[in-house]
Parts: sequence; C-alpha cells; structure tokens
Amino acid sequence: MTNALVITAPEGMPWIEFTREFDAPVGALFNAHRDPDLVRRWLGPNGYEMTIDHYDFVSGGCYRYVHHAPDGGEYAFRGTFHTVREDEFAIQTFEFEGAPDQVAIEYLWFEDLGSGRSRLRGKSIGPSVESRDAMIASGMEKGMREGYERLEALCA
Amino acid sequence: MTNALVITAPEGMPWIEFTREFDAPVGALFNAHRDPDLVRRWLGPNGYEMTIDHYDFVSGGCYRYVHHAPDGGEYAFRGTFHTVREDEFAIQTFEFEGAPDQVAIEYLWFEDLGSGRSRLRGKSIGPSVESRDAMIASGMEKGMREGYERLEALCA
Repeated sequence: MTNALVITAPEGMPWIEFTREFDAPVGALFNAHRDPDLVRRWLGPNGYEMTIDHYDFVSGGCYRYVHHAPDGGEYAFRGTFHTVREDEFAIQTFEFEGAPDQVAIEYLWFEDLGSGRSRLRGKSIGPSVESRDAMIASGMEKGMREGYERLEALCA
Repeated sequence: MTNALVITAPEGMPWIEFTREFDAPVGALFNAHRDPDLVRRWLGPNGYEMTIDHYDFVSGGCYRYVHHAPDGGEYAFRGTFHTVREDEFAIQTFEFEGAPDQVAIEYLWFEDLGSGRSRLRGKSIGPSVESRDAMIASGMEKGMREGYERLEALCA
C-alpha cells in the first residue's frame, strides 16, 4: 500500500494521533463512516465479522457493534456521536466493553485533497496515559491498518 | 462553607480533577444531576439564569442548555451522555458553543459517605493542554464553586 497509516503516541500523554491518505474522494470516505452497511464491511481486523446493534452517525446519535473473531470471541464497542458534519468532521466517544468505563473521545477530520484523493486524520484521547498505553498494547494498530486497507478497497 | 471544592490541574496534562463533599445523601446529589428542573436551579455561576433545550440524563442521551448572564450575554453548552449509572457514575461530553469543536469528556463519580453525606469526584479531559488551560482561564473554578454551593443548599 502506498497510503500508509501513520500513528503517533507521544510519551506520557493520553492520546494517539493518526493520519492516512486514501485514493478515494472525501465524500466516499465520509459515507463509508456514515452508512452502517458499509462500516461493517471495513471496520476491524481482517478475518472478523462485524454485527451492528445500532449506528446513527449524526450529532447526538449513538452506536454499538460487535466484532466476531475467527475463534468465536466477541468484542463489543459502543459510544455516542457528539458532532457529525458531512464530508468534514466527527467527534465520538469510544468504549470497548471488555474494559468498562475506559472511554476515549475521538476526533476525525475528513480532508479533500483534490483529484479524487482524501486524507483522514484522527486524535483519540483516553482517560489516562495508562489507558492509552493499554489500547496500543491491545493490537490497535494492526486492526486499524487492516481496516483502512479494506476501507480503501471499498471506496475504490 | 466547610465542604470546599478542590481542583487540581497537573502541569502539561489535558485534564483537571476535582472533588467536593456534600452534606446530602448520594441519591439527592445524583438526582440533582438527573432532573433538569433541579439542574437549572444550581448549575452555573451565581446570578445567571439557565434555560434547558433538552436534557436526557441516561446512557446514550444528550443535552443542550444556555446560561443567561446578568448583562444579557448567552453561553450555550451541549453534549452527550455516554454512560449514566444511578447513584454511582456518569460520563458525558461537554462543549461550550463559543469554542466550537473543543470538546471535553467528563467523568463523574457519586460516592456515598454514609450518615447522609456524599462526595462528588470528577475528571474533565480536554482535547489538548491548551484547551484545558483556556477552560481554566475562562473562570471555570468560580462558576463551579458557586454552582456547587447552590447544589448543596438545594439538596439540604
């Protein structure tokens, strides 16, 4: 892949920042985050199935979904959408139910690069440095990288 | 007041933590956060009127309200409730609309101290150290202290 996922996790701070470019228009990138029928086709690591309880990608909406691992394990996530602005910006909360009450707040910027290309930037802020470090140790980067590769194929 | 508000804002981190005890049972303290007719009687600095557009203090709910200053100024706030557990715990997002997209995530712990007393602990995490520092510089501490004094009187 030429469009690499770049994650930075500054030492001693509770957040990660990430960026990735896509060979896809910003509208397609945004829509793949809004439409639950598309979301479940790209979000999460390779080989997992995803089921969505509810997913209402509007300001004040909320979501819950489950990743089903090949070994039968289930990993549920839930949150609220504080702000959603079409083709531009979103803020959501994010909780892995296996680590209850460790809730991150995530900022997503959708940027039009022209010529049918776009950039996704994100900042995810955990409740503590320890919580952020545990999120990284969980294999977050591999799941994000694989998910965004499937997202790019979906938007192409 | 013997029940002082204590706020800590560690240098170089994006959060504040605060704690305050109340001469009130934990159920009354929680209910004063849940019932919008009570919320508008204590939340905010002295001398302000508060109007509530909506306020649904349940997991997945959301809120928006406006503080009306004595000089006619209006200050609107909105957010979502990620988690609400009765007499125990809440997580919410918090945005002052005058500083759009600077959204904090706030944790609140409601603790029963017995003998009709309780403790409120909170942690508010901003999107950056600069945003946290701007929140403090805005007079946040005075507004919180005055609001909690009215809350204690309301619960008594």
